Amino acid sequence: MEEKHIYKVIELVGSSTDSVEDAIRMAIRCAGKSLRNLRWFEVVQTRGHIENGEIHHFQVVLKAGFTLEDGDDEDD
Amino acid sequence: MEEKHIYKVIELVGSSTDSVEDAIRMAIRCAGKSLRNLRWFEVVQTRGHIENGEIHHFQVVLKAGFTLEDGDDEDD
Amino acid sequence: MEEKHIYKVIELVGSSTDSVEDAIRMAIRCAGKSLRNLRWFEVVQTRGHIENGEIHHFQVVLKAGFTLEDGDDEDD
Amino acid sequence: MEEKHIYKVIELVGSSTDSVEDAIRMAIRCAGKSLRNLRWFEVVQTRGHIENGEIHHFQVVLKAGFTLEDGDDEDD
Amino acid sequence: MEEKHIYKVIELVGSSTDSVEDAIRMAIRCAGKSLRNLRWFEVVQTRGHIENGEIHHFQVVLKAGFTLEDGDDEDD
Amino acid sequence: MEEKHIYKVIELVGSSTDSVEDAIRMAIRCAGKSLRNLRWFEVVQTRGHIENGEIHHFQVVLKAGFTLEDGDDEDD
Amino acid sequence: MEEKHIYKVIELVGSSTDSVEDAIRMAIRCAGKSLRNLRWFEVVQTRGHIENGEIHHFQVVLKAGFTLEDGDDEDD
Amino acid sequence: MEEKHIYKVIELVGSSTDSVEDAIRMAIRCAGKSLRNLRWFEVVQTRGHIENGEIHHFQVVLKAGFTLEDGDDEDD
Amino acid sequence: MEEKHIYKVIELVGSSTDSVEDAIRMAIRCAGKSLRNLRWFEVVQTRGHIENGEIHHFQVVLKAGFTLEDGDDEDD
Amino acid sequence: MEEKHIYKVIELVGSSTDSVEDAIRMAIRCAGKSLRNLRWFEVVQTRGHIENGEIHHFQVVLKAGFTLEDGDDEDD
Amino acid sequence: MEEKHIYKVIELVGSSTDSVEDAIRMAIRCAGKSLRNLRWFEVVQTRGHIENGEIHHFQVVLKAGFTLEDGDDEDD
Amino acid sequence: MEEKHIYKVIELVGSSTDSVEDAIRMAIRCAGKSLRNLRWFEVVQTRGHIENGEIHHFQVVLKAGFTLEDGDDEDD
Repeated sequence: MEEKHIYKVIELVGSSTDSVEDAIRMAIRCAGKSLRNLRWFEVVQTRGHIENGEIHHFQVVLKAGFTLEDGDDEDD
Repeated sequence: MEEKHIYKVIELVGSSTDSVEDAIRMAIRCAGKSLRNLRWFEVVQTRGHIENGEIHHFQVVLKAGFTLEDGDDEDD
Repeated sequence: MEEKHIYKVIELVGSSTDSVEDAIRMAIRCAGKSLRNLRWFEVVQTRGHIENGEIHHFQVVLKAGFTLEDGDDEDD
Repeated sequence: MEEKHIYKVIELVGSSTDSVEDAIRMAIRCAGKSLRNLRWFEVVQTRGHIENGEIHHFQVVLKAGFTLEDGDDEDD
Repeated sequence: MEEKHIYKVIELVGSSTDSVEDAIRMAIRCAGKSLRNLRWFEVVQTRGHIENGEIHHFQVVLKAGFTLEDGDDEDD
Repeated sequence: MEEKHIYKVIELVGSSTDSVEDAIRMAIRCAGKSLRNLRWFEVVQTRGHIENGEIHHFQVVLKAGFTLEDGDDEDD
Repeated sequence: MEEKHIYKVIELVGSSTDSVEDAIRMAIRCAGKSLRNLRWFEVVQTRGHIENGEIHHFQVVLKAGFTLEDGDDEDD
Repeated sequence: MEEKHIYKVIELVGSSTDSVEDAIRMAIRCAGKSLRNLRWFEVVQTRGHIENGEIHHFQVVLKAGFTLEDGDDEDD
Repeated sequence: MEEKHIYKVIELVGSSTDSVEDAIRMAIRCAGKSLRNLRWFEVVQTRGHIENGEIHHFQVVLKAGFTLEDGDDEDD
Repeated sequence: MEEKHIYKVIELVGSSTDSVEDAIRMAIRCAGKSLRNLRWFEVVQTRGHIENGEIHHFQVVLKAGFTLEDGDDEDD
Repeated sequence: MEEKHIYKVIELVGSSTDSVEDAIRMAIRCAGKSLRNLRWFEVVQTRGHIENGEIHHFQVVLKAGFTLEDGDDEDD
Repeated sequence: MEEKHIYKVIELVGSSTDSVEDAIRMAIRCAGKSLRNLRWFEVVQTRGHIENGEIHHFQVVLKAGFTLEDGDDEDD
């Protein structure tokens, strides 16, 4: 009955050459391929790689929560 | 040989209208449906939702550890 | 338009001789006297006072979020 | 005499479907309706909500500092 | 009945050219102009500004707790 | 003269099959056997053990403060 | 295109009677049985068990990141 | 042989109506009554009590390390 | 031989009126004037200044790592 | 009845010219001289001293938990 | 153009037999010998050494920020 | 006069295929090439890279403190 407020939480690292927001979107889309019910995310760390004095890509460490559904055989 | 001290750790959010302890139990039971060997938990955060000035439900973020067993095809 | 996701956050300390949950309820009710739209809380710290070797009362430090409404002249 | 370096600090949650920066701006503008002298902010947490596998909105928890002025009847 | 152990908590930044203790006092006095029942404080951060290689002023970030009283129309 | 505000602080782990509050009480009582003047506690961590998919016991890590008295030969 | 910088992160506890490094290796090898693309680890906590006044085993809590590959049906 | 670099660490709360430094001194002196070999301290928290809008006393939470000596029957 | 994995780490504050990403770029470019081999960065804090109720500029505190090379006479 | 899960926790600093593990062992052995029932430890900090450009000794700050037994007159 | 808001940050440990404030001043003055544009500091840790049961000196760990100027050949 | 207790602190990342201790030594030796008076270090993070399911190298993030001497033209 309270199950709609029960989540599993995974940790992801996303990446983008453009922006922090885009790195978050890349991580969410990648996780969404195998998990249907992602509900929220939280940014744990923002970092990036530098090449030739310029930012090559941003990297964002996320936690993301998803709900379990009957019939789901999600893997985590 | 030391394998009995090797764990995987998952993060869960449980919920209850009654108490913090009950929110922990809900998360453990939900995880226990797919994981046989849960051994311990640690509360990471305690929070809740408020409706009409009263607590509607408590939410507890947990880490929980489980051991792997031969023949297990656990998913995480 | 996104205003329903905009909150102000206050910090409260609640207290109860009975339980942690009751200390949370005391803080929420006390804040609810002057704030109509409390939506969520998060426990920041749990502590208590001891007298004659027994727990005299539990004290819980909370953050609580509320939404602003037009016509509100809330004070914080 | 040192009063120009004395601040009160509030905590806010802002939101935007577009970007982290826009979520910060929404929170600052909302707080600015009742507080004239906001001086600085600090991002405490960045998170968001997901719907149908896409980011629905970003949410940013801020601390913001403001100075008090004579004649102010600020509410917090 | 337990109300004497219920507090609201505010965050303040105080400042002094002389000492850390004096910066704390400045913040407490400033807050005390509008809040009658301040009971305790906790130093969250100590910092300062430098001009011409000397400390120009110390700045102290505080949390301070106060109790609510009947008849109070405190603003935060 | 300020001695009534001078404490020593110990760290304890208490345990209960029933509740978080009961685990706190067990730790306080156990410490109280050798320390007369316990004044306050603070919960540092809440965790527990799981057996057969159910919570076997809750464990609570506490800090507890006590005052020294003349004639005390407390051991810590 | 940026996918080579997208990771999932798992948390593990490894154990060894010999050394901290060996406890890390035990955890990595155990995780490597079901995950092909482990890339990095980070030590979150180092602890251990004591028996008869000697260290019985070291335990290390790790985060480990792995990349996803097409055709992978990894479970977490 | 390395014993001169082996310490036990205790936690103390000191108090003074005058200054943070004096609160540290009060805690060190109080601990020094029963411990001969205190070597260092570290401030964990600085707080205080307020009465009638003025600081009544500063309170400082310390960790302090001491070495053990042969013949010591320290209680800690 | 392992020297390519040895870094020095510096801390920087960058600033931009436009975005968090641009503030990061400003800091990296500024550091790049005197350091040839910057490899990565990590955002430690995001904050900003407010003027007339609008964000005047974003400020980002970074750690950045660089490798040392023979013949380098880098200054930090 | 739950007493076997009740611990007192002490903080120790151990030291070794050889390794981190050996510094942990030195601290555990030193504590074991006066405490019979040490059960677990957790590393809180790893540091060391440098002389003439080489590591002179490693220093490890530990928390260690022990159980109380009837008839024990342990001192902490 | 935004360069006036770009800083490098260094970490320093200052020391004084008298007070925390004096230990901060000693560190700032020492750093000021080679760095012209120190602008702010933040106290990261306060600690000290004890001899014969009295505080021998206070030690303060600081972060300090400075701006770069054209023509500067600062070393860090 | 207190100058022997004044340090500058740098942050380093060392690396070794063998052990955590060796990664610390590599960082200290590398820093020691340009800094004569390194006195202490503190481990901030322990991590590593994995190749083909085995640990390729350990990486250790350190803070290291050094004293300044007259005539030094250290670069930090």
